[in-house]
Amino acid sequence: MPEHDGKILLCRRAIEPRRGYWTIPAGFMENGETTQDAARRESIEEAMAEVEVGSLLAVVHVLHADQVHVMFRARLAYPEFGAGPESLEVMLCDEADIPWEDIAFRSVDFALRRYLEDRRRGVEQHHFTTIDFRKPPGG
Amino acid sequence: MPEHDGKILLCRRAIEPRRGYWTIPAGFMENGETTQDAARRESIEEAMAEVEVGSLLAVVHVLHADQVHVMFRARLAYPEFGAGPESLEVMLCDEADIPWEDIAFRSVDFALRRYLEDRRRGVEQHHFTTIDFRKPPGG
Repeated sequence: MPEHDGKILLCRRAIEPRRGYWTIPAGFMENGETTQDAARRESIEEAMAEVEVGSLLAVVHVLHADQVHVMFRARLAYPEFGAGPESLEVMLCDEADIPWEDIAFRSVDFALRRYLEDRRRGVEQHHFTTIDFRKPPGG
Repeated sequence: MPEHDGKILLCRRAIEPRRGYWTIPAGFMENGETTQDAARRESIEEAMAEVEVGSLLAVVHVLHADQVHVMFRARLAYPEFGAGPESLEVMLCDEADIPWEDIAFRSVDFALRRYLEDRRRGVEQHHFTTIDFRKPPGG
């Protein structure tokens, strides 16, 4: 969740799934890196942004995808960014302008909402949740 | 980190790696479960113990093994436990009796120490760390 001057860095996805929808820089970990390393690397790759990774924000179990999404607070090291090859565009977005209807993934929506709530309250907590789109047995 | 009455549940490993050394119930996640589900399942499998999973304790990046260890505080639902097939023995252990020389993994040592420190201070924080036994380039 990279932030600068109260605004949040969002990327519009240039690739499937969810091409054209907005997300925060994120992706699969590589071997030999930490979760924070991966967050830093994805911010560079997707938003051409160097970030300082902060506290743990969210852990989202995405059961239908067999994934665990780990999100951190972060700050832009300096206010420079741009669209990497996997992004159509990148913006620093005021809370009032967040395109809630066009957020790419449920886990990003969850993390954004918890981030903003915590910021309003002046706290930095972490939040667990589970998302499960698997069909019920026989369904 | 299952606890009962101030004592910590430790398992002596019946399998390699580190057979004969002490650990807390832990293991690989399965598809379709959360990190907390996995902790509960491993407590049943390795220590025949039903636990209530609590707050996040530690996230350990084990770079040489390409693993992320996620540890939680937990309480025994009731004081019953025993050695599952992957354990030689299971004990509820006072802090003073922890076999520090015979702890199976560095990540478990880390989580145990943070757990005890936090407990002394009356807090429940979470702790990130990285362990890296990879050889240096050319080493």
